[in-house]
Amino acid sequence: MATTILRREDVDFLLYDWLAADRLLTQPRYCAHSRETFDGFLDLCADLARDAFLPCFKASDEFEIKLADGEVTVLPQLAEALKQYAELGLSAASFPEERGGAGLPFLISTAGLAWFAAANFSATAYALLTAANARLIAAFGSDEQVSTFALPQIEGRWFGTMCLSEPQAGSSLADVLTKAWPDGRDYLGDRYRLNGNKMWISGGAHDITENIVHLVLAKIPASDGTLPQGSTGLSLFIVPAVLPSGERNDIAVAGLNHKMGNRGTANCLLNFGERDGAVGWRIGKEGDGLRQMFMMMNEARISVGLCAAAIATRGYYLAVDYAKGRVQGRLGNAGSAPVPIIEHADVKAMLLAQKCYAEGSLALCFYGAALVDREHEDPDSAALLALLIPVIKTWPSEFGLKANDLAIQVHGGYGYTRDFDVEQLYRDNRLNPIHEGTTGIQGIDLVARKILRPAKGWSVLKERIHRTIDAARANPDLQDLAGHLSGGLDDVERVKDAMKDMDEKEALANATSFLFAFGHLVVGWLWLDLAVTACERADLALGEHDDLAPGKVVACKYFYAYEMPRVAAWLSCITGRECILEAPTSVF
Amino acid sequence: MATTILRREDVDFLLYDWLAADRLLTQPRYCAHSRETFDGFLDLCADLARDAFLPCFKASDEFEIKLADGEVTVLPQLAEALKQYAELGLSAASFPEERGGAGLPFLISTAGLAWFAAANFSATAYALLTAANARLIAAFGSDEQVSTFALPQIEGRWFGTMCLSEPQAGSSLADVLTKAWPDGRDYLGDRYRLNGNKMWISGGAHDITENIVHLVLAKIPASDGTLPQGSTGLSLFIVPAVLPSGERNDIAVAGLNHKMGNRGTANCLLNFGERDGAVGWRIGKEGDGLRQMFMMMNEARISVGLCAAAIATRGYYLAVDYAKGRVQGRLGNAGSAPVPIIEHADVKAMLLAQKCYAEGSLALCFYGAALVDREHEDPDSAALLALLIPVIKTWPSEFGLKANDLAIQVHGGYGYTRDFDVEQLYRDNRLNPIHEGTTGIQGIDLVARKILRPAKGWSVLKERIHRTIDAARANPDLQDLAGHLSGGLDDVERVKDAMKDMDEKEALANATSFLFAFGHLVVGWLWLDLAVTACERADLALGEHDDLAPGKVVACKYFYAYEMPRVAAWLSCITGRECILEAPTSVF
Repeated sequence: MATTILRREDVDFLLYDWLAADRLLTQPRYCAHSRETFDGFLDLCADLARDAFLPCFKASDEFEIKLADGEVTVLPQLAEALKQYAELGLSAASFPEERGGAGLPFLISTAGLAWFAAANFSATAYALLTAANARLIAAFGSDEQVSTFALPQIEGRWFGTMCLSEPQAGSSLADVLTKAWPDGRDYLGDRYRLNGNKMWISGGAHDITENIVHLVLAKIPASDGTLPQGSTGLSLFIVPAVLPSGERNDIAVAGLNHKMGNRGTANCLLNFGERDGAVGWRIGKEGDGLRQMFMMMNEARISVGLCAAAIATRGYYLAVDYAKGRVQGRLGNAGSAPVPIIEHADVKAMLLAQKCYAEGSLALCFYGAALVDREHEDPDSAALLALLIPVIKTWPSEFGLKANDLAIQVHGGYGYTRDFDVEQLYRDNRLNPIHEGTTGIQGIDLVARKILRPAKGWSVLKERIHRTIDAARANPDLQDLAGHLSGGLDDVERVKDAMKDMDEKEALANATSFLFAFGHLVVGWLWLDLAVTACERADLALGEHDDLAPGKVVACKYFYAYEMPRVAAWLSCITGRECILEAPTSVF
Repeated sequence: MATTILRREDVDFLLYDWLAADRLLTQPRYCAHSRETFDGFLDLCADLARDAFLPCFKASDEFEIKLADGEVTVLPQLAEALKQYAELGLSAASFPEERGGAGLPFLISTAGLAWFAAANFSATAYALLTAANARLIAAFGSDEQVSTFALPQIEGRWFGTMCLSEPQAGSSLADVLTKAWPDGRDYLGDRYRLNGNKMWISGGAHDITENIVHLVLAKIPASDGTLPQGSTGLSLFIVPAVLPSGERNDIAVAGLNHKMGNRGTANCLLNFGERDGAVGWRIGKEGDGLRQMFMMMNEARISVGLCAAAIATRGYYLAVDYAKGRVQGRLGNAGSAPVPIIEHADVKAMLLAQKCYAEGSLALCFYGAALVDREHEDPDSAALLALLIPVIKTWPSEFGLKANDLAIQVHGGYGYTRDFDVEQLYRDNRLNPIHEGTTGIQGIDLVARKILRPAKGWSVLKERIHRTIDAARANPDLQDLAGHLSGGLDDVERVKDAMKDMDEKEALANATSFLFAFGHLVVGWLWLDLAVTACERADLALGEHDDLAPGKVVACKYFYAYEMPRVAAWLSCITGRECILEAPTSVF
């Protein structure tokens, strides 16, 4: 079986030819870097992913994570891979130098992560959660909190989690019931005793690192013991598994979730404060918890999209290899020789769809990561990023999963067996439309916060789409597609404006359909932009896959022929909204 | 957790209100039956599915089927459930009385099977394969072959398999290499010695019954030892695991496939003739093997669609129950009480989509089964059945799987865990787009055999669609949908005619897209027909779900608003075919 995880030349094309990542080097904060340090980092990621993460891909799935005597044991090889990751300083990649980091642009660290996610999503999840945790403490914590709890994570010695959901409160965080009772103050800030049950905690317990830093969303009761209503009453607390004193905190693993996929990531139900209350320190101000979480959400949601894109991309490469090697069926008459199945139109179509979904997802996530690197200097980038985040999270999750589905289909019966990696990739990727806000929640985020309210991101997006349209119009091979994109943009904008005239409930009834239509428009735009770049760079030698640049053009054309027509279908649903809102519960 | 497998009142609606199954009683061959015997059979199925098949649903998945010393051991509870199935005479349900059967219409036996497939797909597969095997022997075998090999299967004492694929020949049966060497003749007909390797044999070995009858597709070598070329050289052989003499036949289990789902069905690699050659008897004439298989394919493909539909339907009911019971989020302001998630528009939309996919699939399969009951008397029914078979196999497999995907999504994180049945239903159903001819193969069957060649089925279909359109036009609540269906039919027909003008290679390049467009048109037609019936019967009390009839109308409207617009999107692909055919292998 092929061991291609990602194609380096494709990543280079996205980073350098398309996104001009070397221009980041002109920013003062990246001046210590060079194309060589970027490349060295990517080499390191590719090598470690291949040598340590990929070899335990299957074992991470087959190993049943155990809970015994309150201790959670994960696959030893997976723990070993993550230790190597930390020892090589990779946990620190995207953190600024003053935080002990390598100071790489988010775009470059994101590209590096793609190798790990493609090789072993389950193992990579621990690193992603840890980075998100440390980034939040670094952004909002006091100096003492940062040095005590963030730095060991940046160094990779400790791991971190996000503890938001509770059994009765998944998407609805306003209903969180975990309580934080004031317990004085020390050098780490306002101290609390927490009690409550947290659900779906990825990496909530394991034997990989000596400590785990939980970030816990909880409510501070009023003096009469009542909890503040709604999400504004939420605060965020640092609750380490092992206290600075060396004592174990009052946190118990109440159970493990046994999942369809992503099985190497321990997913726990944690009980905080079964005895005297778990000790925690508040980050920032009271009632700021949800705002803090949301401010860090962009990176987290890009990471989900990226993992989905990486899993889809590896599945696509496996399907290509299989289709090139598997000889069956004939093109001409019965007497002719059998051909590799990649020669059959139906298989070719499935591979083109996967290429569009997988490489399109990767491009989308890289584009988002590049916006993160610019958002502090450039308000346009920040506005565009806010608009695109629901798409960056959802599109790769939904269509990357579809790519994995097609990778199985290309393999036929073999793809349905556990002997072929595409089977596990499909199960692993099924998580991504669920966690970090389901597809439905992303639709509501898009429509309620970014479409119904005035948002600058829309005009930035339009301007950039028009720039791509203009470039494509100048290319005879792409000008039809430019017209198609322009029409698609008009269609989406017309429905967007119509939604503004609806009452909010009506508009939100079709938020998911709008998210899909908008997502396809955005990815269609990026594919055309990729094709424009590919046509400009067609003269370049592009490594092993000589047809990399023509391949982008072919995939772009496929996307416009086979996928863009769906935009109109999703948009037309929005006029049919009454049949959802009116449906009484009794008809189901 | 709910134990609803299927809703009896919904099945009754489909059978009696919609398909007028009681009219079958006027046919002489069903004159021994009555509505009471039909109902009694359905009661029996529902009870046994609930009491024996459902209880081992999870265990069928968790139990790892073992191969040791050449023997395959399945889950004892699953074996026990199947023994009860046989003891109650259910294996004989659809066979005519002169073959020892109960002589039920195929429609009624199909409805009964839906309960078993919904309760435990893995267990049901053994029964389906056995019925298909016995039906083929009963159709083409000699009297001695029938009494020796079919009757024990009809009685449920033995099970049967279909051995078509080989490691190098999955969809491409012309490339089968298994050889059958002439070995004389006895009371069972022309005897052969077979050797070759057969792959993907569901139920290929197990410890449930004392004998297993394999139907093996193989080639008879010429006197110089060469094999006939192409599929016309294939003959079909009865190769029992235990010979009439009581001796074990020369068949070895070379391995088991460990699958993503459908894990209770043992799937084997069988080696025939490792020693002296496996003894087998030819059925019918030399070179007739593929034709015989194809003549029995209709029932087999309806069964696949039915299983997919049943799995989807059970997932839908589980999602409805979960959505009614899970309280989270609010409809109005933050201070209002949380509501069951079924009240949220996004969840409602996911349930409506599932209802359309699941109940629409069930209706489609029942419709196909009703055509089987008429095909021998009525050439129109036979022609329509031939046209619809690729849709009946594919649509429930693809969209039923999508329904199971949405059932997970409604459950959120819970749906991704093995504690909830929707997780397994999704993995189980992933098989159905693969086996009995992949979706791609079905597309080719539709376009190559039924669209590009003159086929009477098309005019029959058009006439029936127009009948539904006329009925819907007379109903003010449905007349818009009638116009939509009429337009959809015109669009599909226009592209169908355009495909006839293409060369075959071009037309086949988009066979799958055409299959999807045509499938949605067919299911859209059936949904409108269901809605017409529901409106006529809205006065009937329809059991526990009082809103059954209005529910059909709501689902129909949803389908036209949200799903029918996809028809145009698929059809538009067909004009974009050049980007598939022209894509060189090097771009992937």
